[in-house]
Amino acid sequence: MKAKLILVGAGPGDPELITLKALRALETADVILYDNLVNQKIFDLVPALQAELVYAGKLKGESFRQETINEQILEYLKKDKVVVRLKGGDPFIFARGVEELELAQEQGYQVEVIPGLTSGLAVPVLNKITLTMRNKSDTLVFATGHEINAEKFKLWGDVLAGGNTLLLYMALGNIVEITDALSLKLGEEFPVLAIENGSLEDQRIISSSLSQVNQKLIDKSFKSPVMFVLGKNILNNSVNTELRNLLKTVEA
Amino acid sequence: MKAKLILVGAGPGDPELITLKALRALETADVILYDNLVNQKIFDLVPALQAELVYAGKLKGESFRQETINEQILEYLKKDKVVVRLKGGDPFIFARGVEELELAQEQGYQVEVIPGLTSGLAVPVLNKITLTMRNKSDTLVFATGHEINAEKFKLWGDVLAGGNTLLLYMALGNIVEITDALSLKLGEEFPVLAIENGSLEDQRIISSSLSQVNQKLIDKSFKSPVMFVLGKNILNNSVNTELRNLLKTVEA
Repeated sequence: MKAKLILVGAGPGDPELITLKALRALETADVILYDNLVNQKIFDLVPALQAELVYAGKLKGESFRQETINEQILEYLKKDKVVVRLKGGDPFIFARGVEELELAQEQGYQVEVIPGLTSGLAVPVLNKITLTMRNKSDTLVFATGHEINAEKFKLWGDVLAGGNTLLLYMALGNIVEITDALSLKLGEEFPVLAIENGSLEDQRIISSSLSQVNQKLIDKSFKSPVMFVLGKNILNNSVNTELRNLLKTVEA
Repeated sequence: MKAKLILVGAGPGDPELITLKALRALETADVILYDNLVNQKIFDLVPALQAELVYAGKLKGESFRQETINEQILEYLKKDKVVVRLKGGDPFIFARGVEELELAQEQGYQVEVIPGLTSGLAVPVLNKITLTMRNKSDTLVFATGHEINAEKFKLWGDVLAGGNTLLLYMALGNIVEITDALSLKLGEEFPVLAIENGSLEDQRIISSSLSQVNQKLIDKSFKSPVMFVLGKNILNNSVNTELRNLLKTVEA
């Protein structure tokens, strides 16, 4: 029995930000189920690609539920296929990869995971924004903004008040509530960056403050995926001079 | 003038966990200054490698200070070289990449950064430990344990008490103080994993609790680099069944 499920992280969008290990897994695949956040140009990077490519994402009203994806995975495994589940970013960060693996494992199939560059790491770094600074920002936090509550606001506020770094995924829909809550603790002038389509050629950046970022997002019609980068130390000391100049008016 | 500094993340140790973009940067380099945490097998992955390879790490008492590295970088740039600074993990996470870039940029040289898989992300994921869980562990924290204080213990305790995930780098030297402090808030039975040489063939894992991990580290003579993984939800629900069984006795 050669059947196997390999969960693979595709990285943040730029196809070249996939790992060599991931590319080699794609070469061995009989079938690749890929998400809509996966850049399909990745497939051009695998000359020996033989796999059947199966789209497993959402687009314009289509809705592939997780159950359907799970069923598809099992169906291919039963046919003794090497199945690669290719996901944007990393399969185990703000993704449901663990449910897919568990399912396959419970049915007795071999499973493997290959990590990928999550956007919260890769997108700021590509833009020359350091994520940690010795003795100034030495705790780094990744979180999502699509489900919010007072406990999260408290934790994020503490992280940021201490000078540390917060990367917020999926926060566009709740950005008013989030910035309002954080302003109470950090002040309205606290710096925030919003990066749309990070790592891709059409990437756009807004550098702003908690009080003004929402209006700028509206003015510039930012759409998902947007990564929010918060942290007074990392932003005011970025080696990206363009960004630093934009932020100069913001209180350190 | 072709001189340029490219800061490149090599990933956690397994040479195949470098990105394609990083490999292509290595191909273009005239000189590569590499750290001691960089797996030199990476160079075998670049058939067109032409660069001079310069070791810039520490080994057995040798001590290359940051100043020396900075001087070396500038020296090569002045000779109009394409300089790759190859660092373990990611160049902007718990590393001093930002200082190197700033220096080169201040002298008017072009700079670029290529992110890499940081160990805190890659090592647990390779071991089938999810880093986030929907509605259970949705804040993910990376921190270092080599400089500790009450403020950090408070923050980490809050993160973990909320069910979230904490990855601790460079914590081996202070593990007694750290586990003592966290026990007060989380209880002595709170689960913790220690992974030595993560992603490499000689990787070893200890699954334990806050009260017992230190003795196990001593018994097994664990040496740096060790990644500590904490989080009751992610550990008690790992799809790594071997680990999960080991942790079964630990309170959920």
